Amino acid sequence: MSLRLGEIVDALGGVLEGGERDAVITGIAPLDAAGPGDISFLSQPRLQPQLAASRAACVIVAPALRMQARARGACIVAADPYVYFARLTQLWRQRHDPAVPPGIHPSAVVEASAEVHPTATVGPLCVVERGARIGAHTVLTSRVTVGARCEIGARCLLHPGVVIGADGFGFAQEGGAWVKIEQLGAVRIGDDVEIGANTCIDRGALRDTVIEDGVKLDNLIQIGHNVHIGRHVAMAGCSAIAGSATIGAHCTIGGAANVLGHLSLAENVHISAVSLVTHSLRKPGQYTGIFPIDENARWEKNAAALKQLHKLRERVKALERALQESKDDPR
Amino acid sequence: MSLRLGEIVDALGGVLEGGERDAVITGIAPLDAAGPGDISFLSQPRLQPQLAASRAACVIVAPALRMQARARGACIVAADPYVYFARLTQLWRQRHDPAVPPGIHPSAVVEASAEVHPTATVGPLCVVERGARIGAHTVLTSRVTVGARCEIGARCLLHPGVVIGADGFGFAQEGGAWVKIEQLGAVRIGDDVEIGANTCIDRGALRDTVIEDGVKLDNLIQIGHNVHIGRHVAMAGCSAIAGSATIGAHCTIGGAANVLGHLSLAENVHISAVSLVTHSLRKPGQYTGIFPIDENARWEKNAAALKQLHKLRERVKALERALQESKDDPR
Amino acid sequence: MSLRLGEIVDALGGVLEGGERDAVITGIAPLDAAGPGDISFLSQPRLQPQLAASRAACVIVAPALRMQARARGACIVAADPYVYFARLTQLWRQRHDPAVPPGIHPSAVVEASAEVHPTATVGPLCVVERGARIGAHTVLTSRVTVGARCEIGARCLLHPGVVIGADGFGFAQEGGAWVKIEQLGAVRIGDDVEIGANTCIDRGALRDTVIEDGVKLDNLIQIGHNVHIGRHVAMAGCSAIAGSATIGAHCTIGGAANVLGHLSLAENVHISAVSLVTHSLRKPGQYTGIFPIDENARWEKNAAALKQLHKLRERVKALERALQESKDDPR
Repeated sequence: MSLRLGEIVDALGGVLEGGERDAVITGIAPLDAAGPGDISFLSQPRLQPQLAASRAACVIVAPALRMQARARGACIVAADPYVYFARLTQLWRQRHDPAVPPGIHPSAVVEASAEVHPTATVGPLCVVERGARIGAHTVLTSRVTVGARCEIGARCLLHPGVVIGADGFGFAQEGGAWVKIEQLGAVRIGDDVEIGANTCIDRGALRDTVIEDGVKLDNLIQIGHNVHIGRHVAMAGCSAIAGSATIGAHCTIGGAANVLGHLSLAENVHISAVSLVTHSLRKPGQYTGIFPIDENARWEKNAAALKQLHKLRERVKALERALQESKDDPR
Repeated sequence: MSLRLGEIVDALGGVLEGGERDAVITGIAPLDAAGPGDISFLSQPRLQPQLAASRAACVIVAPALRMQARARGACIVAADPYVYFARLTQLWRQRHDPAVPPGIHPSAVVEASAEVHPTATVGPLCVVERGARIGAHTVLTSRVTVGARCEIGARCLLHPGVVIGADGFGFAQEGGAWVKIEQLGAVRIGDDVEIGANTCIDRGALRDTVIEDGVKLDNLIQIGHNVHIGRHVAMAGCSAIAGSATIGAHCTIGGAANVLGHLSLAENVHISAVSLVTHSLRKPGQYTGIFPIDENARWEKNAAALKQLHKLRERVKALERALQESKDDPR
Repeated sequence: MSLRLGEIVDALGGVLEGGERDAVITGIAPLDAAGPGDISFLSQPRLQPQLAASRAACVIVAPALRMQARARGACIVAADPYVYFARLTQLWRQRHDPAVPPGIHPSAVVEASAEVHPTATVGPLCVVERGARIGAHTVLTSRVTVGARCEIGARCLLHPGVVIGADGFGFAQEGGAWVKIEQLGAVRIGDDVEIGANTCIDRGALRDTVIEDGVKLDNLIQIGHNVHIGRHVAMAGCSAIAGSATIGAHCTIGGAANVLGHLSLAENVHISAVSLVTHSLRKPGQYTGIFPIDENARWEKNAAALKQLHKLRERVKALERALQESKDDPR
């Protein structure tokens, strides 16, 4: 597994300085782990001190760091080193890891009325139900279920265990028992969407659940029925969006964070890990709700005090009144 | 896809007023989204203002709203419009979406000693292990595993990726390593239970894990070994019940909420989303433990203060003492 | 299903006292549930009061409780009754539940370049991708995916729905869209690792994700790319470790607990259920961050007060100043 520096800049652009086009690169590694056969990258200012000491054969840097990088050895100057690194991983994979061939694996179960684009891949042991549509160049890796009438756009990547179009969770209550509300909608997923392992996206009750273009979902995520997720949203693992919520474009949802049902998030809202969104958020920004972790003994004391917090506030109010009175009427 | 109003009331009861039995309905929609071919329903008082303006062909209403509904146009008067709507979705589905035929899909792996009722459906790529039993009219959609000796009752619906009867998580510690406790129990699931995509119910250690009749579980739920879940409990997505806990009938567990092991919840206990139950709850009611979400900068200030909360309480106590002293002994 | 007391001590050691070697045991049960055909065990001091009243045919006890146990009837004296019980469940299972035979189930999809040890079991509907390796006596139960180039050690047990080696969640941002960072690493799992149902372990970005020997993972766990989990760590259900975090040996992670990315946990750190680790923890111990659950009405009051907590602290400071001033300058 190798690439020459010349091949890299020919494919991805950027300017190679202080290095030979013929130099052979045998791996990609972070600055501090890179050996003399590796190419590395400097994308975060805080890592700049690692630059001089790095043993990498070549470092991808921003124009502002060109002089420091040259002082060390070979570099590739690129406007955004992290994006350049991302495209380099894509080039690396194309060269060394043959793409899954398009077509339907013989072990997959695809119903006759489903439409699978000839350039799409339906991997081993997938299920594609009646009337479902799989777009061009989309890959269902293995053990993916796409339910009846659900649509997946082009260039999507669905990891193992993904379930698209299971029933949303909807019941009416009658005499203490639950009466099922059949979920008559479907799921519509745009282009360039990636969905992590064992993630579930439920079909809508009356209308469709919608995931727009460019959305990236990590593993073990739950998307409830009728949810609408805007373009280029990214959600980290184990997060969940409850039914009928709307997530604006370019939002990010931290790991294990949750959004309650029927809420709306504006564009560019960022939810910290594990936080629970309990009301709609109309203003872009970072939002957080996390109980700070502590040594257990200290946590116990603070948690006990927290259960009396509103009483503590009353006591402070009483003190303020008493102090005011003693000022007004000093004995 | 259509139904006539007459067919609806013939099948589901209720009284059609101000409309023709022959009127053709082509969809079901909420009041504000309904077009002139749709039937809608009014189940929540807060939506009443939407009634007059709705373009729906017909609205399902409670007897108390009959006059207002008639002023607008056609209506079906029913005791509980939301339950009526639920049954209407069932009728709609029966008419337009052919039921999965009973039987075992050729791609499923069913061991010889498993018992599958002739009216049950074992969908594509399911696994039913030795000695398992699948009751009448129960549907395993696709990619479901039912482990050895586990029993599923009648009219259950198991969504893709469900795992019934994986080993419970039990180990003894010996010299820093873990010694497996083989899980010798099984899982017993009653009738009319629905289980969401990728949800897991572990087999018991010595006795069985039990899910009683009418329980509804959403996606990505974890039920530990020896848990007992009472009739008509509903659990939202990503929630979890740790080992040996007992959940009383008619409880509801919010999304991503957790119940610790060996606890008991009385009947009709309702746990808010994301809350962690750390002690048994003997009294019906709603219980909550959520850190309120806030703009990140404000959260940081409050979280920092929270880590000193017990000291703040001490300071308030000291102030109270000092103020009392100054009163007792004014200079 | 039965074992004689003599067979038990012959296989597992310990000293049988006050009972016949020929006595037939037909089940294993806790002290309070055991009937006259059952063997039981006393492993926790708090259960000691149950000993005298237990109907068990035989009780496994520590040497210190030998006299009390003899007063009741038959007992097996063993250094660690809970470990003895664990091994007894293993013996029970070996005798009564035939082990899954080694080999590759005909419904599994194993690519030609994968290496599966002849003593390993690849169960129904599993996928083992190119270049993957499955060690001796390891069992993939059913519907497990092991991705390309991933390695699983010896004597591992992977429950249904497990996904090893899906892509880690890595993207660069460019003009509001996400550019995929191909995940070029793999997953390396040691010996004696157990992985629960529907748990996901992502492949590394540049290097490998590593799970060391003896680790036990429950169901629905998410392990991000580049994570390193030390020997004999145990993680309960629904917990998650974000990318590039390092978990020291012998740590335990409670159910639904989360560790943020790039953090390090020392050895023997114990994280309580649902707690979020937001900074590295260098000192062994128990750490907790849980919002205490309460009746909803009380929670609402305390949560409202919490959002003003830093202001309350300011008010206490002001009171302290005012009181000091009134002392310094009494009127």
